[in-house]
Amino acid sequence: MPKVEVCLTPELLHLYDISESIVVVIDILRATSSITYGIENGAIAIIPVKSVEDCAAYQGKDYLLAAERNGEVVEGFDFGNSPFSYSAEKVKDKTIVLTTTNGTKAMRMAQERAKQVIVGSFLNLNSICNYLKQEQKNVLLLCAGWKGNFNLEDTLFAGAVANNLKNNFDIADDASVAAIDLYTLVEDNLRAYLNKSSHSHRLVKLNIEDDVQFCLQKDICTQIPILIGESIIKL
Amino acid sequence: MPKVEVCLTPELLHLYDISESIVVVIDILRATSSITYGIENGAIAIIPVKSVEDCAAYQGKDYLLAAERNGEVVEGFDFGNSPFSYSAEKVKDKTIVLTTTNGTKAMRMAQERAKQVIVGSFLNLNSICNYLKQEQKNVLLLCAGWKGNFNLEDTLFAGAVANNLKNNFDIADDASVAAIDLYTLVEDNLRAYLNKSSHSHRLVKLNIEDDVQFCLQKDICTQIPILIGESIIKL
Repeated sequence: MPKVEVCLTPELLHLYDISESIVVVIDILRATSSITYGIENGAIAIIPVKSVEDCAAYQGKDYLLAAERNGEVVEGFDFGNSPFSYSAEKVKDKTIVLTTTNGTKAMRMAQERAKQVIVGSFLNLNSICNYLKQEQKNVLLLCAGWKGNFNLEDTLFAGAVANNLKNNFDIADDASVAAIDLYTLVEDNLRAYLNKSSHSHRLVKLNIEDDVQFCLQKDICTQIPILIGESIIKL
Repeated sequence: MPKVEVCLTPELLHLYDISESIVVVIDILRATSSITYGIENGAIAIIPVKSVEDCAAYQGKDYLLAAERNGEVVEGFDFGNSPFSYSAEKVKDKTIVLTTTNGTKAMRMAQERAKQVIVGSFLNLNSICNYLKQEQKNVLLLCAGWKGNFNLEDTLFAGAVANNLKNNFDIADDASVAAIDLYTLVEDNLRAYLNKSSHSHRLVKLNIEDDVQFCLQKDICTQIPILIGESIIKL
């Protein structure tokens, strides 16, 4: 039986052997939610880059440029990582270059060692779970966290996936057990629970309640974004 | 109001500013439980050292030498980290040199930057909480974890402390929220819950069920071990 593990932050990624694993990168608020929504809405590709400078290097070419730091759009860029910027109207048939505080870095770190890197969010929860059950490979659920540390929303999503997989996979580490139990404790009211999180205070300050509500919707998307070479495309 | 935070593994310690904090080091199975019990039982001091070689360097002098790796006593040493080796009969008026897989390393890491480092376990839970409430300084609950990664038993103890402090301290990070909620979910049956943990499987293999039961007892000790210079002594 393949195993499922949860890596609570990218700072712990070096502790896992992922050479034969599918890694699901998770940055619920908001990078991987927006990427999921953008790919669902017909973006040709989303190119995750590590720095604002790398993103700016694409300026003047036929790209949409998205840069977020500390939850805000970086000045001079088309947009940041609000999912509402990734509507069909805005992204269909476009290529987007994206840099974010946590999520894009986690993707690149995973890509250096993993067999495959896909992008997960509540928006495509069921599609992700069905794909993983079909593939029957080891799975690492990689929480992007907040500036290297643990966060609640990414862990809750990891718990949602691990809980769905638990009859078909070996729950292989303590982080998976904790994530499943936290998720099942609060799954009926994720939004209220996230009011307890430190990120939630940041989000209130940033005035993005609509984004948070959006990112907690389950299964409004069916596509799975996959990182191939430089680009995230539709699987 | 001072704050309480939970560091889920020593690998994340660099993310916290602990220059003005009391750090409680937590390695429930079994280093900090045994240290608590040994200090309670009249050991003069316990000297935590990083390596088996450092421990062996004390050989031939008037010390008890304790070395554990991967849950087992290292060959040639007096004992490892079973709490039953730290009874009054064995440790009263003795100085013990101790090296363990996770706990002793976490203590030394904390000591490099913290205002104060004390040792916590279920055995002295109430004393620890009362001391922290009396001191009114920022608190970091540092889980030693397992080989750098998250584990359930240390997180549950951190949750027990944070839960006790929550009316007097600011619950300042997502890890504290998660630890409190996991602890309150399972506090009435910690032993059964730990059967879900990966460490539990290791412990069954090591045949130390008695140790586990012992380490989950609450408040059989009242002393607080504190790390001063090279030694852990009674506060």
